[in-house]
Amino acid sequence: MHGESRTRAARPSAILIIDSPEKNADLYYRTHFLAPDPIVFVETKEGRRLLLASDLEFGRARSQADVDRVARYALYARRVARLRKDKRRPEASEVVAAFLSDLRLRRLAVPARFPLRLADGLRALGVRLETRPDPLFPDRAVKRPFEIAAIREVVRSTEEALGAAVAAIRRARIRRGRLVSRGSPLTAEDVRGILHRALFDRGCIAERTIVAGGNQGVDPHDEGSGPLLANAPIIMDVFPRSVRTRYHADMTRTVVRGRASPRLRAMHAAVREGQEIAFARIRDGADGKAIHEAIQSHFRSEGFRTGKRGGRMEGFFHGTGHGVGLELHEAPSISGFPCVLRAGNVVTVEPGLYYRGLGGVRIEDMVLVTRRGCENLTGFPKDLEV
Amino acid sequence: MHGESRTRAARPSAILIIDSPEKNADLYYRTHFLAPDPIVFVETKEGRRLLLASDLEFGRARSQADVDRVARYALYARRVARLRKDKRRPEASEVVAAFLSDLRLRRLAVPARFPLRLADGLRALGVRLETRPDPLFPDRAVKRPFEIAAIREVVRSTEEALGAAVAAIRRARIRRGRLVSRGSPLTAEDVRGILHRALFDRGCIAERTIVAGGNQGVDPHDEGSGPLLANAPIIMDVFPRSVRTRYHADMTRTVVRGRASPRLRAMHAAVREGQEIAFARIRDGADGKAIHEAIQSHFRSEGFRTGKRGGRMEGFFHGTGHGVGLELHEAPSISGFPCVLRAGNVVTVEPGLYYRGLGGVRIEDMVLVTRRGCENLTGFPKDLEV
Repeated sequence: MHGESRTRAARPSAILIIDSPEKNADLYYRTHFLAPDPIVFVETKEGRRLLLASDLEFGRARSQADVDRVARYALYARRVARLRKDKRRPEASEVVAAFLSDLRLRRLAVPARFPLRLADGLRALGVRLETRPDPLFPDRAVKRPFEIAAIREVVRSTEEALGAAVAAIRRARIRRGRLVSRGSPLTAEDVRGILHRALFDRGCIAERTIVAGGNQGVDPHDEGSGPLLANAPIIMDVFPRSVRTRYHADMTRTVVRGRASPRLRAMHAAVREGQEIAFARIRDGADGKAIHEAIQSHFRSEGFRTGKRGGRMEGFFHGTGHGVGLELHEAPSISGFPCVLRAGNVVTVEPGLYYRGLGGVRIEDMVLVTRRGCENLTGFPKDLEV
Repeated sequence: MHGESRTRAARPSAILIIDSPEKNADLYYRTHFLAPDPIVFVETKEGRRLLLASDLEFGRARSQADVDRVARYALYARRVARLRKDKRRPEASEVVAAFLSDLRLRRLAVPARFPLRLADGLRALGVRLETRPDPLFPDRAVKRPFEIAAIREVVRSTEEALGAAVAAIRRARIRRGRLVSRGSPLTAEDVRGILHRALFDRGCIAERTIVAGGNQGVDPHDEGSGPLLANAPIIMDVFPRSVRTRYHADMTRTVVRGRASPRLRAMHAAVREGQEIAFARIRDGADGKAIHEAIQSHFRSEGFRTGKRGGRMEGFFHGTGHGVGLELHEAPSISGFPCVLRAGNVVTVEPGLYYRGLGGVRIEDMVLVTRRGCENLTGFPKDLEV
């Protein structure tokens, strides 16, 4: 499912976010403050940033948050409580409304996913809220140098982890069509464990990493499980987050231990060529939809058809790429919908082909969009047979 | 900040959730389905559960989700597109409205944090949405046997990790008032690393674990950093999630390497007694507020005052406990606000005292509320000096 599409250009207006900074990348982006519980953030039209924090967060917010002022939630809560007779605990909407009233803000832009109950409460108190379509801060898609450095670092860790996983697959012996390591079947879980441990050792957290062999790989979101087969593709899609910087990497390789059939080799070659088509076209100002369609058309011309078979999609039926940063999936999106790439975007390039009986092939790199082209941040080999 | 309080009893009505199951514990609780991207969930008044899934999730949803039916998002999107002349991509609200119309649902309850933009879109299309105050599924606070088993398991892993951390602190030598391990200062980061590695080895993910020595511990949300001091309290607050079961543990111990001052020992004893007050009172039907106030009053009577000093809170200024399960913080909450405990609740008991100059002391166990009392799920020692 996709977010609501953009209906008009955002006018400058004050912005209100109420969320946990640990769960809301926009909030962290704007404040560099981390807290488990919800916090109230306001950015005025003039760019002044304010936080309304509980007593439990106040001290830390004042010393750590990259904002102009931190106010106390408890102060406004007490003021609301004083103004009425019952002893009910003040609703969050009442407290926030009192805070906004102090700031003389009666009309604010909020994120598309602003919580409805708070919105209903604020609107009932006369605050006008208008959702802004995603992305809330379009600038977030254009990475600054320190963000690019953070991404390079987590990409490097991911490559090292993939190196360990590929080495384990390469070392595996083949017995009755299955991979065997030290006398036991080498499983998807084993390889996932190798990836996760290597990432942990490098300060990264990964979960639900895809290690999907054979037909499991035909469902792009199947995590994969059980013994890995020889002579069949194994998709490894790794998307860790650096604990320290909070930036993500996203990278996929498909390997075969043993021999790949000619058809599988052709699939793999077509997917690599699909990537090259994107690399040649990605640059500041390029149209994501045109890139996606060029790859689709390349697959068609190579005889790899996309469509339903037996009620399930086969071929190339997902997007070509997406932005990566504080969120694993963020703007821009390279897919069948229009999008203009900008220098500073960091996007994945991840064409794939999936056919039951053959398995799946996906290759995913991350590239930095530049004025005249792109820089591939991923240097990991793309050999099919290992 | 606190959620909106409950305004009236929830009437039975159909429920609509639109969110990523990986980020929404209610959605996972009801479907046992995991996916990174948003999915549409409907539960009818009669308890029928339906999902509306993208083509990318459809197959997996059908085989894995614990629901009665999975419908295709793309089908409804095409229907919406056919009904109009422009070529705009159908808004998610239009697609969901078409799905709800098929189900003859025009009035639904949604979670407090239902995304506003979707809600505005659905309401504009005539769908009536009313937010339900948290918790959306009050049953979630009453743990079923398999949930209790999952929690016991992650508690056990947490105790083992704490065991490794305490052992490292115990092994440390004291040099010029600092802890030293193998010739280098033993830091908060080192101890955090020991905890995280031990948890990783047990299939758990932990992040931002608190290891806060001396005055750092006075801010209950300070993660802690730098060399650890001898003769001063070190708070370790560990709250991992099991990757496999998704259930959390939450546990805190405060230790001193070296000698604790008499005042610090008295603080630690008072906090332990605070826990005992809770353990003696917790049972099915008990009032959380009365428990919290009994601990407050115990601290007062022992001479440990709560209030502001130099603009910062000192004493005991957070809640006594909270539910733990698929979320780290969930219902019920044992604090200054009314709440009735129910058999099957799993809650933390975590009184604490914080004074600048002395440091912080917090001890946190997890207990299972039973008909006639409670069972402490945590068996880890509570010695102050190690």
